[in-house]
Amino acid sequence: MDDLKLASKEECNSSLKYVFDALYVLGGKWKLPLILCLMQSPKRFNEIQHEMTGISPKILAQELKDLGQNEFITRNVYATTPVTIIYEATDYSRTLKSVLNELSSWGMQHRERIMRGRVVEEKMD
Amino acid sequence: MDDLKLASKEECNSSLKYVFDALYVLGGKWKLPLILCLMQSPKRFNEIQHEMTGISPKILAQELKDLGQNEFITRNVYATTPVTIIYEATDYSRTLKSVLNELSSWGMQHRERIMRGRVVEEKMD
Repeated sequence: MDDLKLASKEECNSSLKYVFDALYVLGGKWKLPLILCLMQSPKRFNEIQHEMTGISPKILAQELKDLGQNEFITRNVYATTPVTIIYEATDYSRTLKSVLNELSSWGMQHRERIMRGRVVEEKMD
Repeated sequence: MDDLKLASKEECNSSLKYVFDALYVLGGKWKLPLILCLMQSPKRFNEIQHEMTGISPKILAQELKDLGQNEFITRNVYATTPVTIIYEATDYSRTLKSVLNELSSWGMQHRERIMRGRVVEEKMD
């Protein structure tokens, strides 16, 4: 029985460790949305900035660099005039599909819950 | 055909919006790990701090307050001497179970990938 308890506690701590590992590379306000945005289609810098409402060009450049270093995206340079630079999600970033699907479903339910809460509050006023 | 394309683009932008919604309340380094930690079992402040390596008491207090306001955890006060305060995950935080499972599995695979990369690098040295 004690063995079982111990195993279960270790398992719990492992999942906590893995969540920390994931957030170490994916944490922050922009990384997961950026990966999702580029999984939907490859894009130029300005197109990405347009979809990420509120991000500054400086932060966007830094975030794209970080994502590149962690092999979530590639930066492809095409020798047009002027040069065209396209950012694209890698196959590795596609391993995040389930995470992003779950997060998006949860976000949808959360939004609905907040909206229902507001309706109830308004009725009570 | 154009209609289909439009629908698909809107769907894409919705999932991006929902991911932003989710990260708005769950973003940052500590919130998801804290929810997971309290989903595993209710805990006192010091116990939580022990599991969250590197968090300062000030930040932990603020994070617990935020999580309480968003109804992810409750703070239960028991009239012992001295008073016992136990933090507990709510049913609402349990709606994050799939998100946390996916994030944890991904973190595990990511760790394995990094470790494999290190082994390859060492062999090449």
